[in-house]
Amino acid sequence: MTAVGIYGSAGRMGRAIADQLADLGASLAGGTDTGDDPAPIANAADVLVDFSAPSALDAHLAAAIAAGTPIVIGTTGLTPAHHAAIDAAAQHIAVLQTGNTSLGVTLLGLLVREAAARLGSDWDIEIVEMHHRHKVDAPSGTALLLGEMAAQGRGASLAELRVDARAGLTGARCEGTIGMASLRGGSIVGDHSVVFASEGERLTLSHDAQDRGIFARGAVKAALWLAGQPAGRYRMGDVLGL
Amino acid sequence: MTAVGIYGSAGRMGRAIADQLADLGASLAGGTDTGDDPAPIANAADVLVDFSAPSALDAHLAAAIAAGTPIVIGTTGLTPAHHAAIDAAAQHIAVLQTGNTSLGVTLLGLLVREAAARLGSDWDIEIVEMHHRHKVDAPSGTALLLGEMAAQGRGASLAELRVDARAGLTGARCEGTIGMASLRGGSIVGDHSVVFASEGERLTLSHDAQDRGIFARGAVKAALWLAGQPAGRYRMGDVLGL
Amino acid sequence: MTAVGIYGSAGRMGRAIADQLADLGASLAGGTDTGDDPAPIANAADVLVDFSAPSALDAHLAAAIAAGTPIVIGTTGLTPAHHAAIDAAAQHIAVLQTGNTSLGVTLLGLLVREAAARLGSDWDIEIVEMHHRHKVDAPSGTALLLGEMAAQGRGASLAELRVDARAGLTGARCEGTIGMASLRGGSIVGDHSVVFASEGERLTLSHDAQDRGIFARGAVKAALWLAGQPAGRYRMGDVLGL
Amino acid sequence: MTAVGIYGSAGRMGRAIADQLADLGASLAGGTDTGDDPAPIANAADVLVDFSAPSALDAHLAAAIAAGTPIVIGTTGLTPAHHAAIDAAAQHIAVLQTGNTSLGVTLLGLLVREAAARLGSDWDIEIVEMHHRHKVDAPSGTALLLGEMAAQGRGASLAELRVDARAGLTGARCEGTIGMASLRGGSIVGDHSVVFASEGERLTLSHDAQDRGIFARGAVKAALWLAGQPAGRYRMGDVLGL
Repeated sequence: MTAVGIYGSAGRMGRAIADQLADLGASLAGGTDTGDDPAPIANAADVLVDFSAPSALDAHLAAAIAAGTPIVIGTTGLTPAHHAAIDAAAQHIAVLQTGNTSLGVTLLGLLVREAAARLGSDWDIEIVEMHHRHKVDAPSGTALLLGEMAAQGRGASLAELRVDARAGLTGARCEGTIGMASLRGGSIVGDHSVVFASEGERLTLSHDAQDRGIFARGAVKAALWLAGQPAGRYRMGDVLGL
Repeated sequence: MTAVGIYGSAGRMGRAIADQLADLGASLAGGTDTGDDPAPIANAADVLVDFSAPSALDAHLAAAIAAGTPIVIGTTGLTPAHHAAIDAAAQHIAVLQTGNTSLGVTLLGLLVREAAARLGSDWDIEIVEMHHRHKVDAPSGTALLLGEMAAQGRGASLAELRVDARAGLTGARCEGTIGMASLRGGSIVGDHSVVFASEGERLTLSHDAQDRGIFARGAVKAALWLAGQPAGRYRMGDVLGL
Repeated sequence: MTAVGIYGSAGRMGRAIADQLADLGASLAGGTDTGDDPAPIANAADVLVDFSAPSALDAHLAAAIAAGTPIVIGTTGLTPAHHAAIDAAAQHIAVLQTGNTSLGVTLLGLLVREAAARLGSDWDIEIVEMHHRHKVDAPSGTALLLGEMAAQGRGASLAELRVDARAGLTGARCEGTIGMASLRGGSIVGDHSVVFASEGERLTLSHDAQDRGIFARGAVKAALWLAGQPAGRYRMGDVLGL
Repeated sequence: MTAVGIYGSAGRMGRAIADQLADLGASLAGGTDTGDDPAPIANAADVLVDFSAPSALDAHLAAAIAAGTPIVIGTTGLTPAHHAAIDAAAQHIAVLQTGNTSLGVTLLGLLVREAAARLGSDWDIEIVEMHHRHKVDAPSGTALLLGEMAAQGRGASLAELRVDARAGLTGARCEGTIGMASLRGGSIVGDHSVVFASEGERLTLSHDAQDRGIFARGAVKAALWLAGQPAGRYRMGDVLGL
């Protein structure tokens, strides 16, 4: 039985992951929260999952490397510096970083990339997401993930194409850009739509989550898969063999 | 037969309005475009419609007042100064200003106000709109109109409650605010949704226009109604007797 | 503290209602399931809620009348004979029957009635709902409730206007009818949309429930309100004072 | 310049196709309507497009075979016997038959097949479409096309899996089935959604057409591509090289 260690075990995702372990044939190696020493759990676990805070990432990666334990990173709000640290860690251990651990979202991203690649730049791409009122950042990590997939389909990076938060005298839309918009309210777990709009027609690819459990189940499945992998940086699509 | 004069007659809306006149039992008194003298048409017409540019509004209002001719104003992108000028003109002539001349949108606004009034402030309000790629301002005039109706239902003005274009570390949503988001792409004539989101449930009131003709027909109906009214500032709801 | 008796206490709604009582300042007078004698709980309770099966309705109404205890009926799948039995019971006790105990759905129904009344019969009305894969009847009780509100706005009954389940060579749509469609899948708690479609524009009024708790909370609120009412037949809108 | 002959030239699609020819570098070889002899146009044209009625299909295929002219068939409401006739004709000439000539719908179908193949049978598939009030059949040809693509992804045919028009005591949903629902109203050109619903999450792939011109443009593009092909039966995906 694979033993899973949880960084951020007192958070909402951390607790949901702990709840799913038995059902999916895994056991709990232990959990830590802000300020705890990450090393003992890294040593005890077969694989780690991190749903804590960006500020704790460096310490968690260092502990994982020291223990030689693979790690799934689901923390959102990462900067380029965090991504560079993940790339460096992936030289030593298996690291799967993702903005969304849902199987449905992972498939959506692949469909978005395919659609962006097949449809010419006369199909404008817009991404809109809605989350609950307590979310503190925008756009969501999943929206950024979908934006990257759309940009990849166009042979570019999201940073080159992204237009956030239109307001005021914006001027006409620039061909090839990817617009992002964020709604907040109620207890919405997470809705995402990617819109491709052309002359007279529109294609919309959407996902909605009704239940946070889908992320926990997907995170555990990813961890079980990652436990057996060599050093390298992985994505959710790899878990599905895509 | 009522004679209608059109300011902005060479624009898309101006031409669509001219096309609808005969069907709705009206005749064309004439039209002007940028730089033309607005006075002759104001004198010739029983009622004016203005779908030109904000910069021309003052001259159009002055001509309408001088001729004593009622005017429907559908120009978007108006500032508080423009609204003050409209209020001043409404002392002398009948003026109907609206961000949207569709009957469906007008009814939507009234339903939004009712919903905002009945539902407590634990129901978060978000407004999202999508328009074609050529639109140069955001949010749309209709989205602002819907936002004002929602704010009225909460006993406030949109200016007090409005939050535009979330991006970055926004923090949690502030209770009572109204979020606005704008998408742009393809040839979308105009989609608007007002979302009320609470714990575990969500109410969404939406309108979509497939055809610019709805605005032209509504504008002509408004003009025919306004032709017989005394001085004052009117809204589309007045046309419907609401 | 109001004591609430639950018919159908072992069902999903029955258990959810029991879970909400304390939070909303009520206590549990007891519950029964299929085959139990309904009389003792009717005597012990200040108000009853029934989320059991249509076949048990007559016995539950008889027990409520004998005890003089008001009753909220949320059981779905009722026939005209059941409604007649409810009308008869309402001569003796307060009875609130509803296909949906959510506040959001109740408001949606009132907005639908208003829209149907304001918009002419050139606005076609269609109702579409989606529920989880385990639901055994179609359309949902809530869809029928919304259909009745739309029909009322048109000065008719749903039975006169309703068109179920289009398939095959249906011919063109008949003016004034109300179409109903049902989707089933996954774990969807309940999505409902009422569409008003005219030439070139469409108004859509929707509700989605993410969490069965909204129905239980609404049912308890309705029961607390009903406990103090005289004999008569009531609806959820009465709870809101609408 | 490719000369295109139109069967059903007086119909809405026939006229729209004629309007697009010049823009896309083609010329009109002529058109026929009900009762006209199809032979002269088959001889005059480099390629034919047929948007007439199922009852005329046999005569149109015979004329195309006799003249050796490729034919695009967009007529809806075809029976298995019609499809057998098309297969027989495809022994002699190039025939492209499709329920939808839009590029967006064609791509949607391919994404639907991919999603159906990747997601297990615990993801329930439902298809819902809306069209204008004048449409006389349900579901739409496009909805059936999308259903076939979903069924293909599951290694089956739509006929095996299809469930039309749920109403009444349907019982729980059967695993692996594909539900179909149709809405009618207003002037909607054509909206289609394919829903994949699982425990706690849902993927929705949608297309909406605002303007019948997309079908005419796609039909002309298909005809231009088909003009150079050898005998065989083709689909819209072939036009895109998919």
